[in-house]
Amino acid sequence: MIIITRPDATEAQIERIVDSVHQWGLKTEVSRGVLRVVIGVIGPEDKIREKPLGAFPGVESVMPVLKPYKLVSYEFRGTPSHVKIGPVTVGTPEVVLMAGPCSVESYEQITFIAKSVAKAGAKILRGGAFKPRTSPYSFQGLGKVGLQFLHEARELTGMPIITEVMDTKDLELVAAYADCLQIGARNMQNFALLREVGRTNLPVMLKRGMAASIKDLLMSAEYILSEGNFNVLLCERGIRTFETMTRNTLDLNAVPVLKAETHLPVVVDPTHGVGVREFVPAMALAGVAAGADALMLEVHHEPERAKSDGEQSLRPHEFDDLVTRIRRVAEAVGRSL
Amino acid sequence: MIIITRPDATEAQIERIVDSVHQWGLKTEVSRGVLRVVIGVIGPEDKIREKPLGAFPGVESVMPVLKPYKLVSYEFRGTPSHVKIGPVTVGTPEVVLMAGPCSVESYEQITFIAKSVAKAGAKILRGGAFKPRTSPYSFQGLGKVGLQFLHEARELTGMPIITEVMDTKDLELVAAYADCLQIGARNMQNFALLREVGRTNLPVMLKRGMAASIKDLLMSAEYILSEGNFNVLLCERGIRTFETMTRNTLDLNAVPVLKAETHLPVVVDPTHGVGVREFVPAMALAGVAAGADALMLEVHHEPERAKSDGEQSLRPHEFDDLVTRIRRVAEAVGRSL
Amino acid sequence: MIIITRPDATEAQIERIVDSVHQWGLKTEVSRGVLRVVIGVIGPEDKIREKPLGAFPGVESVMPVLKPYKLVSYEFRGTPSHVKIGPVTVGTPEVVLMAGPCSVESYEQITFIAKSVAKAGAKILRGGAFKPRTSPYSFQGLGKVGLQFLHEARELTGMPIITEVMDTKDLELVAAYADCLQIGARNMQNFALLREVGRTNLPVMLKRGMAASIKDLLMSAEYILSEGNFNVLLCERGIRTFETMTRNTLDLNAVPVLKAETHLPVVVDPTHGVGVREFVPAMALAGVAAGADALMLEVHHEPERAKSDGEQSLRPHEFDDLVTRIRRVAEAVGRSL
Amino acid sequence: MIIITRPDATEAQIERIVDSVHQWGLKTEVSRGVLRVVIGVIGPEDKIREKPLGAFPGVESVMPVLKPYKLVSYEFRGTPSHVKIGPVTVGTPEVVLMAGPCSVESYEQITFIAKSVAKAGAKILRGGAFKPRTSPYSFQGLGKVGLQFLHEARELTGMPIITEVMDTKDLELVAAYADCLQIGARNMQNFALLREVGRTNLPVMLKRGMAASIKDLLMSAEYILSEGNFNVLLCERGIRTFETMTRNTLDLNAVPVLKAETHLPVVVDPTHGVGVREFVPAMALAGVAAGADALMLEVHHEPERAKSDGEQSLRPHEFDDLVTRIRRVAEAVGRSL
Repeated sequence: MIIITRPDATEAQIERIVDSVHQWGLKTEVSRGVLRVVIGVIGPEDKIREKPLGAFPGVESVMPVLKPYKLVSYEFRGTPSHVKIGPVTVGTPEVVLMAGPCSVESYEQITFIAKSVAKAGAKILRGGAFKPRTSPYSFQGLGKVGLQFLHEARELTGMPIITEVMDTKDLELVAAYADCLQIGARNMQNFALLREVGRTNLPVMLKRGMAASIKDLLMSAEYILSEGNFNVLLCERGIRTFETMTRNTLDLNAVPVLKAETHLPVVVDPTHGVGVREFVPAMALAGVAAGADALMLEVHHEPERAKSDGEQSLRPHEFDDLVTRIRRVAEAVGRSL
Repeated sequence: MIIITRPDATEAQIERIVDSVHQWGLKTEVSRGVLRVVIGVIGPEDKIREKPLGAFPGVESVMPVLKPYKLVSYEFRGTPSHVKIGPVTVGTPEVVLMAGPCSVESYEQITFIAKSVAKAGAKILRGGAFKPRTSPYSFQGLGKVGLQFLHEARELTGMPIITEVMDTKDLELVAAYADCLQIGARNMQNFALLREVGRTNLPVMLKRGMAASIKDLLMSAEYILSEGNFNVLLCERGIRTFETMTRNTLDLNAVPVLKAETHLPVVVDPTHGVGVREFVPAMALAGVAAGADALMLEVHHEPERAKSDGEQSLRPHEFDDLVTRIRRVAEAVGRSL
Repeated sequence: MIIITRPDATEAQIERIVDSVHQWGLKTEVSRGVLRVVIGVIGPEDKIREKPLGAFPGVESVMPVLKPYKLVSYEFRGTPSHVKIGPVTVGTPEVVLMAGPCSVESYEQITFIAKSVAKAGAKILRGGAFKPRTSPYSFQGLGKVGLQFLHEARELTGMPIITEVMDTKDLELVAAYADCLQIGARNMQNFALLREVGRTNLPVMLKRGMAASIKDLLMSAEYILSEGNFNVLLCERGIRTFETMTRNTLDLNAVPVLKAETHLPVVVDPTHGVGVREFVPAMALAGVAAGADALMLEVHHEPERAKSDGEQSLRPHEFDDLVTRIRRVAEAVGRSL
Repeated sequence: MIIITRPDATEAQIERIVDSVHQWGLKTEVSRGVLRVVIGVIGPEDKIREKPLGAFPGVESVMPVLKPYKLVSYEFRGTPSHVKIGPVTVGTPEVVLMAGPCSVESYEQITFIAKSVAKAGAKILRGGAFKPRTSPYSFQGLGKVGLQFLHEARELTGMPIITEVMDTKDLELVAAYADCLQIGARNMQNFALLREVGRTNLPVMLKRGMAASIKDLLMSAEYILSEGNFNVLLCERGIRTFETMTRNTLDLNAVPVLKAETHLPVVVDPTHGVGVREFVPAMALAGVAAGADALMLEVHHEPERAKSDGEQSLRPHEFDDLVTRIRRVAEAVGRSL
């Protein structure tokens, strides 16, 4: 930790800062410039990360030297992690496709789509049974019945399933069906939920919140790992900017940054990221080129009748076509599909 | 709802859209321009708000005519609402001050601060027992013990208390102590929690998420009202922008917009909004001038020892001084304190 | 300057950094932690601010100790500056009102509005002769004729005039008429223009760009001061965020931050900042409460016929009414009008 | 244009709106719902795009039916445009690489780098002679001397050159040397400059401003085309968001959106877009996968001594390596290099 004082900081103020750091059990190194005094704090930064150094009179700014995340940091493992979801492993040279409808709507719908995406090359089936919707009047998902339909789609296709859990009260139920739990963007900082999924041994895909910095995303993942569950995937799914021609702004910059900062696998969700069907394929290809370990894509055979996200869902034949193109890009960047 | 077609939309595509609208039980009015066809949908917009009109081939854009919120809209009441929190009413010409520490840290701390802010003019005591923290390694609040200390502070001062609930599992416990429940910015779209607080009869202060539009905030409030609880306050507490010299960007524009759009009272939290102690007073005064019905302010007598938010908490004498200045501005805009 | 190395930085890399700093004529102070090495640079920071320290292998981050602006910094003067615009001084306890139409449209229009706002209490007349418009097909201003009409409005009312200059080629012409030059938000980083207005001795009002940080704004002002012109006003006029219910997000947080960081006077433009007429008064009052030295407001007597910005312009009677309310708030915060 | 009235709009207000539209020479179609009246305007939308319909009492919102850009719209041409820069054509299936240093620093520097990138596969040489710098104290470019060095590098390598023009006063000079003019992000809405480059017959690469929406970018291009110059390239180079781990947020979503909205070729600048050397290659590959027609990349053989942007410039061997990888991805998406 480095503390920079204000130009008008008094000697007494500086002394008080130094004394406090010493009381917390750390050492200091004081450099006096013409305009500012710089106080370097020597010792385990953790001990004082939470101290309100900025609240001391005379302090202009406080700069950490170390990063606030530990278990998720690349340094902690020194090598990329693999996460197993049923028979599928994410984080290897093989790019994994997760596909399915936004919401589970009926037995016929989910099984039809599941078979279709499995045939095209998807390895994991997505589908929402509990749906976070902006409006209380929108379709909220089939709940337990939706989970049962997902279960049957898994029986038919062999694909493991990923589905969202929105609340700690539903966790036991969802965990009984899901092969991978999804934490949605709106719950990225629902810390109670993060802790609880951290206490399961299920894989968890954590989506980045719309205003979450990459650091925030990593800190939320740290909650899950700190409870003992290291089976975590991070998903970029679009942030909120001033742009209105796309639903969100898919931030692919996050992919190489995350690959450098953390050992956890990175998933890209171009469907929510751009939010307009015709632009999804380009962003899916770009996601793979940027280094994603997996893609999540929404597919619906009747988007005009979808109960949610029809506007951005690919039709099965569009998905088929896209898989072929994804495979070529994956191979071009030294991966496979 | 108004549907605008693409320039290359075919007659068959237009017919299919019109037919679908008719099947949903609404009427259409078709205007043909040179480049685009405009399809007006006549009838209750609710019926088709959820239909994926954008998913139909040939559609360029879909524009709603009506607003998606109902119970929270100003039109629904036609007059501002009052919300009672214990003996205090928010939403009247009197500007209400909520003050207290970020976190409840000890019996001594909360009672000392409570007495101090009560004497200065605060009417409601704030203090967190369950704390949403970015890092799992940060102080997470005293939990039940913190609630008990808040209870004792209320006994001593007569001030009702507002405190955050972070998870549905904690709701029963928090509701047993709180006079007003707080939903934090990170949980603004925790829809399960919104529904559950909507089923209590306690006042709820809903904070705007960091990337939430004003419309999103109103839709989240609609969740609570749609469960029958109309005792809702909306709180502006800063959004996330590219600016780094403040912790967040307190969006005071939201105050007059909300006063026009909804009957619910509006609270401004300059402490989190700007996040730097020396700038809090200016933003508090500006919030009152912009039309806030209440202010929420963090106060700590030893910010250098605070377990959270020391950098932005006012000291008691700073709060005292600010109350005097707030009173003058409140009176200048035709209100009182 | 403080340099933090990567955990995998080699001794050779660290040595090379230290050697380079020494070659640039500065000293270093090296602290070795367990995971990172911290290299403090001792000496005039200016000398190495432009050095690409981040480009050295082994560097993780580089943190400046001093601020990059000098002449505009509060420390440089130690007291707030006053800027004289004709007979009016901005930066004193008196809050100054600048008002007038978005564009000068005709002799009748500008003189009518000028007389009206002068009577109501405005001290400076605004009006655009050269208009920056998003579309090439929009009204682009009357140019020289507009400046002549402004001149006549000044003759009639005695009010000095502020008007925008958009290009270095127009500067001589605009400077012949204007009492204060305005640099618009879109030109905040038109560095050629900044330099040239810095070489005049006219007051300059510099508007913050829509994506400009407060630091960027100060650096742009530094361009003007570094050419010798210290008569600079800074204007907050709204930044771009994800919010769509307002045209921009007026960032009033910038007011107290600027008052702390710089000696230059601060102007708030609520008209462009919020961009919706009915919300302008609340934001004007909030701007004064936040500490603005002046307000800029658009007024038009026939907004339905305005050639630009009709949607956000106040009618004269609304302006009259607002002036009364502004006066009360100004007095409440210890200022006058 | 579609006008939606407020719920409290009076008949007289509605009549006045309709009358005004009729006076402007257009027809109306009025639909009365229970809560709102919808007034469809029939006729050429251009005529009333600039009318301040939102300023009429009783209006809640105004929605355009047509897009505000014409000459740049895809519909205007119906096929992608090719832009010739010297012997190179941008907009064909061949992805074009533009490379070179941020700034021209010396004859040796620019010729060395030019030869190096030409050999690796770049087709166009970039290099700044006039540099837009946030600080007046930073290196501002070599000006005319820099242009002469660029000229000599062109002689040596045969590569056409692209370089920035920052001010109308410099245009004649820069145009005498450049094969393609660059308008930088900070000047994207310098409308005087846009008009003047529109009057040359040189190709122009227009960079997206940091807070510019895609629509704004297209409107700025419209300025150039409306003066008769159709040789325009659009460049995505990163927008400003809350993320701080990258210098900007390269918005690759803009690539497919632009390819759908306009016939103009699209360039991606990953160097400025992400702003950190180690992340540039991933974003370059992603840009090609997203559909970019060209990439602009900064290369410097001694980034530790670069006078600008050393932190983000690739070294020649890194560029070499990247070209090979770009070629593979280009081929994977059906293009060549």
